[in-house]
Amino acid sequence: MATSLDQLKTRLGEIHDLRRANALIGWDQQTYMPVGGSAARAEQSATLQKISHELFTADETGRLIDAAAHETDKLDPDSDDARLISVTRRDYHKSRKVPADLVAEIARVTGQAVDVWTQARAKSDWKPFEPYLQKIVDLNRKLADALGYAEKPYDALLDQFEPDMKTSEVKAVFDSIKPDLIELVRQISAKAGAVNDEVLHREYDEQAQWNFGLDVIKRYGFDFDRGRQDRSVHPFTTSFSIGDVRITTRVDRNFISPALFGTLHECGHALYEQGFNQELERTPLADGASLGMHESQSRMWENLVGRSRPFWQFFFPKLQAAFPTQLADQTLDSFYKAANKVSPSFIRVEADEVTYGLHIMLRFELENEMIEGRLKIADVPEAWNAKMQDFMGITPPTTALGALQDIHWSGGMIGYFPTYQLGNLISLQLWDKINADIPDLTEQITRGEFGALLTWLRTNLHQHGRKFTSVELLQRITGGGLNPAPYLKYLKAKFGEVYGL
Amino acid sequence: MATSLDQLKTRLGEIHDLRRANALIGWDQQTYMPVGGSAARAEQSATLQKISHELFTADETGRLIDAAAHETDKLDPDSDDARLISVTRRDYHKSRKVPADLVAEIARVTGQAVDVWTQARAKSDWKPFEPYLQKIVDLNRKLADALGYAEKPYDALLDQFEPDMKTSEVKAVFDSIKPDLIELVRQISAKAGAVNDEVLHREYDEQAQWNFGLDVIKRYGFDFDRGRQDRSVHPFTTSFSIGDVRITTRVDRNFISPALFGTLHECGHALYEQGFNQELERTPLADGASLGMHESQSRMWENLVGRSRPFWQFFFPKLQAAFPTQLADQTLDSFYKAANKVSPSFIRVEADEVTYGLHIMLRFELENEMIEGRLKIADVPEAWNAKMQDFMGITPPTTALGALQDIHWSGGMIGYFPTYQLGNLISLQLWDKINADIPDLTEQITRGEFGALLTWLRTNLHQHGRKFTSVELLQRITGGGLNPAPYLKYLKAKFGEVYGL
Repeated sequence: MATSLDQLKTRLGEIHDLRRANALIGWDQQTYMPVGGSAARAEQSATLQKISHELFTADETGRLIDAAAHETDKLDPDSDDARLISVTRRDYHKSRKVPADLVAEIARVTGQAVDVWTQARAKSDWKPFEPYLQKIVDLNRKLADALGYAEKPYDALLDQFEPDMKTSEVKAVFDSIKPDLIELVRQISAKAGAVNDEVLHREYDEQAQWNFGLDVIKRYGFDFDRGRQDRSVHPFTTSFSIGDVRITTRVDRNFISPALFGTLHECGHALYEQGFNQELERTPLADGASLGMHESQSRMWENLVGRSRPFWQFFFPKLQAAFPTQLADQTLDSFYKAANKVSPSFIRVEADEVTYGLHIMLRFELENEMIEGRLKIADVPEAWNAKMQDFMGITPPTTALGALQDIHWSGGMIGYFPTYQLGNLISLQLWDKINADIPDLTEQITRGEFGALLTWLRTNLHQHGRKFTSVELLQRITGGGLNPAPYLKYLKAKFGEVYGL
Repeated sequence: MATSLDQLKTRLGEIHDLRRANALIGWDQQTYMPVGGSAARAEQSATLQKISHELFTADETGRLIDAAAHETDKLDPDSDDARLISVTRRDYHKSRKVPADLVAEIARVTGQAVDVWTQARAKSDWKPFEPYLQKIVDLNRKLADALGYAEKPYDALLDQFEPDMKTSEVKAVFDSIKPDLIELVRQISAKAGAVNDEVLHREYDEQAQWNFGLDVIKRYGFDFDRGRQDRSVHPFTTSFSIGDVRITTRVDRNFISPALFGTLHECGHALYEQGFNQELERTPLADGASLGMHESQSRMWENLVGRSRPFWQFFFPKLQAAFPTQLADQTLDSFYKAANKVSPSFIRVEADEVTYGLHIMLRFELENEMIEGRLKIADVPEAWNAKMQDFMGITPPTTALGALQDIHWSGGMIGYFPTYQLGNLISLQLWDKINADIPDLTEQITRGEFGALLTWLRTNLHQHGRKFTSVELLQRITGGGLNPAPYLKYLKAKFGEVYGL
């Protein structure tokens, strides 16, 4: 007779299988699917989601969780099994709190809203999108009420993506760094001519770009027996098991950054997914701790490693060998600076390391105001532009370059944006600890050696998967909570040097 | 309130979604999946199959079938809805007849048997495979008893792949053509030197081979907005919807036939799948009528079209332009004959049009003897070799080149092989009718025009999907049953000319 824990694992394994099959459907849709496949594909995805949702929210799942908890009450609370039960219980209660008709209504509205947003952005016209965003904000408010929260409705929304993180804590941290970031951008803008990134926009053979990216991530430790890279319009990372993690990139013949840094970014996500303890396979713990923690990994390998001077000490000669004509007039120093040019700009996904955080903080502030009813939806574009002027000294000339640029709201996601900046902050908190633990890490990177870094991450972070929340992991690793000091110190030092401030 | 028919369609739609998602899992496994993905992938596939099987065999499905039939008893019995109900009822009753523990036992044994067979074939040693084949034959006998049959147990097995086809009918047809085929092979073998196919084994650039294949199937009418071609070790066709049909091919630098004729073969399957009436989407009718009917389409486009002289009148100059060096010494006539060389050989999948049928008939005879207990499993290799000698005048020097060559038995499939030869026979019955209906088809093919042919197939065959069985379709199209005369006439005429008999 199987124990309740075994029965629970069997059930969760099947739910996991359905979710991963759905991930494969999504991957194929963005990589290889011919246009004729989309209608049926949407039905298939909906069916897999429906069945896995029904299986997970069934009374039987709750009964098995309770019985398994009862069976294992003597276990170490940090053991895999104890954590499996507690994390599953948290997910279960969350998913049971949301009424089925609210889920259906959100799916219905966002299904339309994405199309409306696509059209609205194309015409740079806020008006048609406004009623949809109003509905989405109202539905998210209902969602927050259904999920419940201690302080602010936004807590419940943020908690979907960053479990246990409180709005007040995020706000305090964001508010504390804002003046310094704005001042740093101001200082850099005054010396805008100090860095020229024209070299990034020369013509680079696409296959050679692709190969160079693969060479770098092979050195990073990406396991090609347990993953692969394909092309897609929007780069992403997905996984079908710990042994099968897929990344995608895009290649622009006339701009080397998307393929180069995009590949390193997605590889950071992938190294996290490839690093989960195999014992967690086919359980809800085989996933990242949170979006913020996931982003800390992509930003670390993209920026803290991939845009660092030690990295380019090793890789610049190789890049120059791959593109001798294009890089004939470049030095390590000129290329390093080009890769780190800072410039206030309208579009978040194109932003540099310094301004990126400001883009996020703007959205975080607007989302809070919308959810609390302090900002009318009609006034969002104007509020957006005012903040862009305050934060970066520029004003978007069109709404397409302003409040209509991102897909997230049309997809129903409010509370998601801050996780990007949390990723930046966390990546630096980890980076400080890693450099303390591996004193010669900088030298290792100048030799193209990433083994010690990856081992540290595997040991301290990756292997745990979703056993702990990002808040718990930060506590275990750094002994404290969210701390913006390493982030600010890093930006000031790095860009002070680059711009001679 | 939804009608029972609507409810049935909703349920069948979800089952269809699960099956197509599982097809995507299989496609990815054979095209892009890294090795590390296989363990989890097997679990995912098992879960999707389990859930779709449970949904389909549930009492509720039976109740909805009966209620929907009652609701629609005034419908034209050939209408989509009436056929949906009758075909679903047939599938339902078949699937309910097989006990779950028999299904599980077959899955367990074949899971091991495929590995054992792989090893056995590598060592050319029948002994280790023998007990597994014995179990598989015993389990197939139990399966036949569970499914039920009127005349012979083999009927029930054949019916899984070729619904409504009777063993006695297949046997009568196969027996009737065997002497003529053996005599034709004997005559050709006596003039073996008349055709030289060395040209096929020259060195051909892989990308150029790939491109040539794509050019041909584009002319055939393969819709690249509703499908695509990728590489795999074993070529196959699969589909995730009528709007997304995938084919794969393999490319051998030193042998032009696999990519060339393999692509045309899979394209034939794909044109069938792309041709189902869109109204049948997400129902069990969106599939081929039978394996034999499916094979009739692949063999038609590969052989009746792709290995015909009119085809090469159009395409040989193009092939010569693609490979000017390799084909400099060739004429249309020499290349056409090379592509149609006939030669008794050991391996079925490499067989030519004439000997192919004999390979199948050999397996059909052995399977019948095994299932009826007239042939001991230990004696299969010897019986195999004796028939090879009788049919083609050659004896396999090893069991790997004889009874161990095919994967089918280790996968538990008995009753599958005859569908290959049924496909050949049916393709010629259709071909006769098509040429009667399109008197200038040969001239069209010499101009590279395939539109009228494809339209005929769409109208008379493809659009119906699984609404009718192959037996019913043959009756509707030709006014009769299985008839080997067109097949024999075709082989004698074509190869009589090629070999100057």
